Formats: sequence, C-alpha cells, structure tokens
Amino acid sequence: MPKQVDHEARRTQIAEALLRVAARDGLGSVSLRHVAAEAGVSMGLVQHYFRTKDEMMTFALGVVSENVQRRLAEQAPPADDPRAVIRALLHQMLPVDEERLREGHAALAYAAYTAVRPDASSEIRAQMGQLREYVTLAVRTAGTAADPDTAAATLLALADGLMLHVLGGVVTPQEAQRALDAQITAVLGPT
Amino acid sequence: MPKQVDHEARRTQIAEALLRVAARDGLGSVSLRHVAAEAGVSMGLVQHYFRTKDEMMTFALGVVSENVQRRLAEQAPPADDPRAVIRALLHQMLPVDEERLREGHAALAYAAYTAVRPDASSEIRAQMGQLREYVTLAVRTAGTAADPDTAAATLLALADGLMLHVLGGVVTPQEAQRALDAQITAVLGPT
Repeated sequence: MPKQVDHEARRTQIAEALLRVAARDGLGSVSLRHVAAEAGVSMGLVQHYFRTKDEMMTFALGVVSENVQRRLAEQAPPADDPRAVIRALLHQMLPVDEERLREGHAALAYAAYTAVRPDASSEIRAQMGQLREYVTLAVRTAGTAADPDTAAATLLALADGLMLHVLGGVVTPQEAQRALDAQITAVLGPT
Repeated sequence: MPKQVDHEARRTQIAEALLRVAARDGLGSVSLRHVAAEAGVSMGLVQHYFRTKDEMMTFALGVVSENVQRRLAEQAPPADDPRAVIRALLHQMLPVDEERLREGHAALAYAAYTAVRPDASSEIRAQMGQLREYVTLAVRTAGTAADPDTAAATLLALADGLMLHVLGGVVTPQEAQRALDAQITAVLGPT
C-alpha cells in the first residue's frame, strides 16, 4: 500500500518555509530553489503543490491568517464585548514576539510585492475587506464612535502602520502596544 | 574645454529612474541594468555614481524626502499654527496623486527591503526619528494632547498605514484623507 501523504500538511510545511525565507532574506529572495531547500524537499515537490510564486505566496498569507485566527480562538475574548474582540484582533497584528515578527515581515514583503501586481492581491484585498467589515460592525455594536466606518479604517491602518514602524525600528513594540491601546480607548471608551 | 556636468542633477536623474522602476515593477526588479535603461544612461555611468544598490536606494529615498519638503515649502503652512503644519506634513504621505503614488510605492518597497537589512536602513531610521521628534514638538506646542509622544507616534503610524492601505486598494485615497483629518482633529482639536 502506498504511503498516505497529508497534502494539506505538506502544503503548509512549504508555506512556512516560504515565510521563514521571506522574513529572513526578504521576498526578493523567495525562489522555488530557496523555499525547497528551506523546507527540505525537492524543487519538483514544491512545483507539484504550487504552480506559481503568486500561488505559493497567497497560500502562505492564508497560513498567517489561520495562525492569527487560532491564536484569537485560544484567547477567546467574550463575543458580546466588541472592545475585547477588537483589542484581541488588532494586537495580533503587532510584531511583539518571534512568531508575529516573522508574520509581520511576510505581510510587509507581500504588501510590497502585490502593490505593483494588482492581480496577485485580489484575494488578500477581499480578506482585508472582510476584516474591515468585521471591525466596522464591532465598532458599530459598541456604539461609541460617531463614524464607525472611518473609526474602523483608522484602527486597522494604525495597526498596520505600527507594524511597519516596529519592523523599521521607528517605535518599540511596547510603544506600539501603548499607541494602539490609546486609540482603542479613544474610539471605544475605557475598559 | 570639457563639457561641464552637473553631478547632482545626474545623480537625481538616476534616482528618479530608480523610483519609476520600483513603483512600476517592484524593488525586486531594481537592478543596475534596469535603472540604467530607464534613465537612458550606460550601466557604467550608474556605477560611477552609486557603488551599491543600497547606496542608490538610500539616495533615491532622499530625493523623495526633498520632494516632500519642496511641496511643503510651496504650501507654506503658517509656522505658528502647529495643526496646519502637522496636517500639511501628514497629508504629503498619502498617495493621492501620481507623484505621491510613485513615492508611496518606492517607500513601501524600501521598507520591505530594509526590514530584513537593518544596516541599510540606519539613515532612514534616523530621518524617521527626526520626523517623529518634529511632530511630537508640534503636538506639544498645540497643547491639546495628554501624551504628545504617543499622539505623534500614532499620527505618523496612521499616515503610513493609510498609505499602505491605499496602495493595497483597501481604502480609497478620499477615505484615507478623511480618516487622517479625523485623527488630526481628535488629537489637535477642530480647525
């Protein structure tokens, strides 16, 4: 009987190798060859799972998104407390530990890559659109912001901007957390 | 008599070619060969002015910074009005026209490039540090924020995050302008 292969696990293994390469060397260095070497598999196997670099990167960003959702589920903020839900979500975007630093690097590299390739970013743009709707709904439920749509867009842009500034060494992770919490309090009121 | 060459103009011409290539094709495509072709000069000439890609990119970001300062000087916000100064400065960071879109792409590509090369980013980090001090001082002068340091870090991160989200198609330029103005009003009071 042939050995059973868990294809999803194999794809995830390759995607995580891609994230490590992107975080360490930048996305310019993400080639089939590098990812295969990092994952400890053959180039043919990488090609078997991903036809193009775009496809591989989109899947890898999906893995980041799943990791974020898993960590959120572990924290389990009370669903009837929109402030706690928003706070847990936005703080996941700040690179304050090794895992999120790696994810932040990958997200930044991907943003730079897709900014000049609108076609490659349609899936991520759809995901960001959903995230924005989700946060807007939570802000609206909280009932504290005059303009929930602008308040939600501001919270998400601030979290990404702080991510960028932590990666660039402009602010410390602690300053970023403080700034994000101050904004959440300004929009949603104190705890 | 040999023809006089304006070396600074030549360096700027090459840097602007680099910015166009980075905005159009991404920074992964910025090679000596591409930049030379885009600038309409020989590869040898590019090498004469810039020894490394890092050097070329740092100079190009300096050109962006000068362009921003020139546009600010043209607007001439009243120096005794910290709100007007901050507003003029931060709005320069949003990609709302062709020139700023090009600069935004270059800034994003550069951020992704330097995030994995801390040595290459020391000059930019110093510039960002100065920008942060400048905005903090203006916020402090306005006297409206309880914590001017956090308020300034938030304004700068928000402007960069909105830049990222305009480039990624997550928000429109108009939504970004509205969000930035709302934050300025929240921190510094209405006009």
